[in-house]
Amino acid sequence: MEEKYRLTGLKLKIYEIIFESDTREGRLFDILLLSSIVLSVVIVLLESVQDIKLNWGNWLVGLEWFFTGIFTIEYLARLWVVLNKRKYIFSFFGLVDLLSVLPTYLAIFFAGAQSLLVIRSLRLLRIFRIFKLARFIGESQNLTLALKASRFKIIVFLTTVMTAVIIFGTLIYLIEGPKHGFTSIPLSIYWAIVTMTTVGYGDIAPQTTLGQTLASIIMIMGYGIIAVPTGIVSSEMIALKRRERLTTQVCPHCLKEGHDIDAVYCKYCGGEIN
Amino acid sequence: MEEKYRLTGLKLKIYEIIFESDTREGRLFDILLLSSIVLSVVIVLLESVQDIKLNWGNWLVGLEWFFTGIFTIEYLARLWVVLNKRKYIFSFFGLVDLLSVLPTYLAIFFAGAQSLLVIRSLRLLRIFRIFKLARFIGESQNLTLALKASRFKIIVFLTTVMTAVIIFGTLIYLIEGPKHGFTSIPLSIYWAIVTMTTVGYGDIAPQTTLGQTLASIIMIMGYGIIAVPTGIVSSEMIALKRRERLTTQVCPHCLKEGHDIDAVYCKYCGGEIN
Amino acid sequence: MEEKYRLTGLKLKIYEIIFESDTREGRLFDILLLSSIVLSVVIVLLESVQDIKLNWGNWLVGLEWFFTGIFTIEYLARLWVVLNKRKYIFSFFGLVDLLSVLPTYLAIFFAGAQSLLVIRSLRLLRIFRIFKLARFIGESQNLTLALKASRFKIIVFLTTVMTAVIIFGTLIYLIEGPKHGFTSIPLSIYWAIVTMTTVGYGDIAPQTTLGQTLASIIMIMGYGIIAVPTGIVSSEMIALKRRERLTTQVCPHCLKEGHDIDAVYCKYCGGEIN
Amino acid sequence: MEEKYRLTGLKLKIYEIIFESDTREGRLFDILLLSSIVLSVVIVLLESVQDIKLNWGNWLVGLEWFFTGIFTIEYLARLWVVLNKRKYIFSFFGLVDLLSVLPTYLAIFFAGAQSLLVIRSLRLLRIFRIFKLARFIGESQNLTLALKASRFKIIVFLTTVMTAVIIFGTLIYLIEGPKHGFTSIPLSIYWAIVTMTTVGYGDIAPQTTLGQTLASIIMIMGYGIIAVPTGIVSSEMIALKRRERLTTQVCPHCLKEGHDIDAVYCKYCGGEIN
Repeated sequence: MEEKYRLTGLKLKIYEIIFESDTREGRLFDILLLSSIVLSVVIVLLESVQDIKLNWGNWLVGLEWFFTGIFTIEYLARLWVVLNKRKYIFSFFGLVDLLSVLPTYLAIFFAGAQSLLVIRSLRLLRIFRIFKLARFIGESQNLTLALKASRFKIIVFLTTVMTAVIIFGTLIYLIEGPKHGFTSIPLSIYWAIVTMTTVGYGDIAPQTTLGQTLASIIMIMGYGIIAVPTGIVSSEMIALKRRERLTTQVCPHCLKEGHDIDAVYCKYCGGEIN
Repeated sequence: MEEKYRLTGLKLKIYEIIFESDTREGRLFDILLLSSIVLSVVIVLLESVQDIKLNWGNWLVGLEWFFTGIFTIEYLARLWVVLNKRKYIFSFFGLVDLLSVLPTYLAIFFAGAQSLLVIRSLRLLRIFRIFKLARFIGESQNLTLALKASRFKIIVFLTTVMTAVIIFGTLIYLIEGPKHGFTSIPLSIYWAIVTMTTVGYGDIAPQTTLGQTLASIIMIMGYGIIAVPTGIVSSEMIALKRRERLTTQVCPHCLKEGHDIDAVYCKYCGGEIN
Repeated sequence: MEEKYRLTGLKLKIYEIIFESDTREGRLFDILLLSSIVLSVVIVLLESVQDIKLNWGNWLVGLEWFFTGIFTIEYLARLWVVLNKRKYIFSFFGLVDLLSVLPTYLAIFFAGAQSLLVIRSLRLLRIFRIFKLARFIGESQNLTLALKASRFKIIVFLTTVMTAVIIFGTLIYLIEGPKHGFTSIPLSIYWAIVTMTTVGYGDIAPQTTLGQTLASIIMIMGYGIIAVPTGIVSSEMIALKRRERLTTQVCPHCLKEGHDIDAVYCKYCGGEIN
Repeated sequence: MEEKYRLTGLKLKIYEIIFESDTREGRLFDILLLSSIVLSVVIVLLESVQDIKLNWGNWLVGLEWFFTGIFTIEYLARLWVVLNKRKYIFSFFGLVDLLSVLPTYLAIFFAGAQSLLVIRSLRLLRIFRIFKLARFIGESQNLTLALKASRFKIIVFLTTVMTAVIIFGTLIYLIEGPKHGFTSIPLSIYWAIVTMTTVGYGDIAPQTTLGQTLASIIMIMGYGIIAVPTGIVSSEMIALKRRERLTTQVCPHCLKEGHDIDAVYCKYCGGEIN
């Protein structure tokens, strides 16, 4: 970010600590923030367990406010040092940063016996705090790239799967019917997804021979269909891997390319490569 | 389609709108039709939910007739502009187009209190409307190609899997027997498929130690067997990807393509490539 | 098989029909035999269904004897024309051919009210008839080759998986104990296999928080472990595919190899390849 | 291990038998030890089955002591011949060797009616004996290497999966709630893992339409996510396989390896390779 060079003094210092991680302070800040996020998420999780809430409720509320305070200061600091404030506020992480503190404050204004439940669910939104983790994984690019390159193939695949589960869901509904638990087509489609993805809860299962035959066909198809996303991702990853291993440099003597990254001399004519 | 050039005036105009998507009107038509198909499928799904049918039944019937009207007009228009009418009628999409409107009309003639259920199931056939979606996904070719190229391997694989589940099904029937829910060999084969594909409903499960040992073997085999279709599809996709890396350059001497990116001379005629 | 040329007249004729499939009669014989095998297996399956047996019992017994007769004649014919009889009898398919007719005959001699059950199970061995199908799929070699090449990796993989499920099974037994259905370590190991292979029947499931945490770890590990056999098979298949596409021929001019199968001229120096 | 050459006489002999497997005695020792480990693990497993313990308890205890004796002698022998004793004791296998005999001895000192249960669980630790198996599989290196090379990608992948299951778990908790069995967020996260890994026990399953819709999305995502570890491992294995295709030939000029099979000149120093 070149905008950084328009900052001076304390602002520049804070910018480097908060947004970058190539200084010692920056790295320390990242580790502390990361730990805080994980801890605050754990607190939200624990608060939902009845037993723990009864015994440790006050502690959890206190810690909750402590982390909300920290994240609020962090959010304001980010807002202060960033030059293009609007861009930050409406960026993905800007919104996530805001959503990770807002529910706790909203709980004050909308307090009251009857609305307690709603507030609790609002507070749960703080779970989005963990999205912040992604910020620290900048190198997930390769994975993202592989997924992006095969975007179109994935859409074709998903459309085919959706069509298949709608048709199979309707067929099983006609075969088994409400008598055997398939009370509606949407529920039957849900069953078809549960079956084709090989999850298989077993809360709904075909009981007639014809239904079980259809289920067998769906399962074996699902078995084959699972190969498609795997094939897509594998081929993209292998292509990425190959690209990494080869320079695009041409030998100045014989004009051939395809040299390894560590090659000093052309492997075809023996001429020196730059 | 060269037959298009034998059309004139309005027919040509309609042909371009309905069958092609490279004009603005054609694209608009495609989007509208696609939306109508999805909506009409959603209506069929909702009609099968008891609660929704009771409260919104009339609306759903009305919308049902509205979409049937639209698809009927569309079908007749297709029939009108196409030159080789018989070919269209008996093509896959010609039949699907017809089947997606027919059930609604059949419901009139076969009306009557006692046959209501049958009619409802006939109407469900309109689900085939969604097959139309495939028309808009012309670029699924690559996936189809990969699957086609490995057609034979897939047959060998399926035969092996079928043989395995028949033998394992018989063995588990002998071991567990009707006492533990394995009431017949076909049902036991169904269980073997449920297990080998890692679906695992749990409605039937082995209860003796020997049966559980056999089940464990089937599961671990299924674990390995799932690798085969994945390997087949992956290797085909990687091969397709490699083909992309070839230049599309034509040899100026013999006019053949398919040269490697690092080729200096044409591998067919020996002439120098640019 | 060169031994064929030591046969004459009728024997040669029958040999060609039964053992080969490059004549018209040979192909017809294969198709008829294949159909008979499938039909006779279906009969065994149907006989195990209580309802069908009661209503069609006599028909099934009749058909059973009809197919047994056909397979007996076929077995004797094979025995008659083959020169090295001992080799055929003790070959895999020789034994399968015998086992696919024997149980029906044994049922006569060991008849009696009390032994009915044993006989029925003996007859089920005729299921091995379907192994005959493999004879017609000679081209499954590629798949077999890929599996063979990675034999050692598969053993390492299976040992690791077995070690993991034994340890995880013992841990879950200690955590959940007989109270929650984990009545013994072998049963707990069975549960670990059911979980790690993502089958998940749900007949036994952890109920304590610690047990569910361990189960989560096993599932996510299983998720990753499933990648290993897939990777093994994929890499073998890709290697096979690559080998198919390249000649091992060396260019006589520049001595380079790696030429495509359809190459006429060397892609490096332009010299003519054989 | 060069330290071996500082041993003489009996110690050298025993060292060669216990630690190496290139002599006939060494190989025999390995096979005997391997069998003993497997048998002793089987005994631990059988002891946990109530019926077997009642009928064969004494035999199992006897065999248990027999194997403990053997492993104790083996441990002491290892300790005696090894030069750097401290290094052995605190090595992974040194600790495993100790842990595989200790629990049986501890059972004597801490005997008593009330502590029986604790002792039994201590004895179960002997299961770690099977870790010894790993010693005999030195060639698992290739698999380990492939996993190591993709260490970082696996961490990114696991973080993404963890984030996804936490968010999906919270959402399903809000949608279904304690009424339908989702009594806390941690339990709901457990359910999300069970669903995303396609295990699907079915002990907890969504019952509202919204919950089932969310479950469907998780399943289809899980379907795609499973492709990522597979892609990672596949691409690593293919890279390993390609490396195998390199010659192991050393350049006669600069003594470096890693040349392509089709290389004519050394890619490091430009010197001609044989």
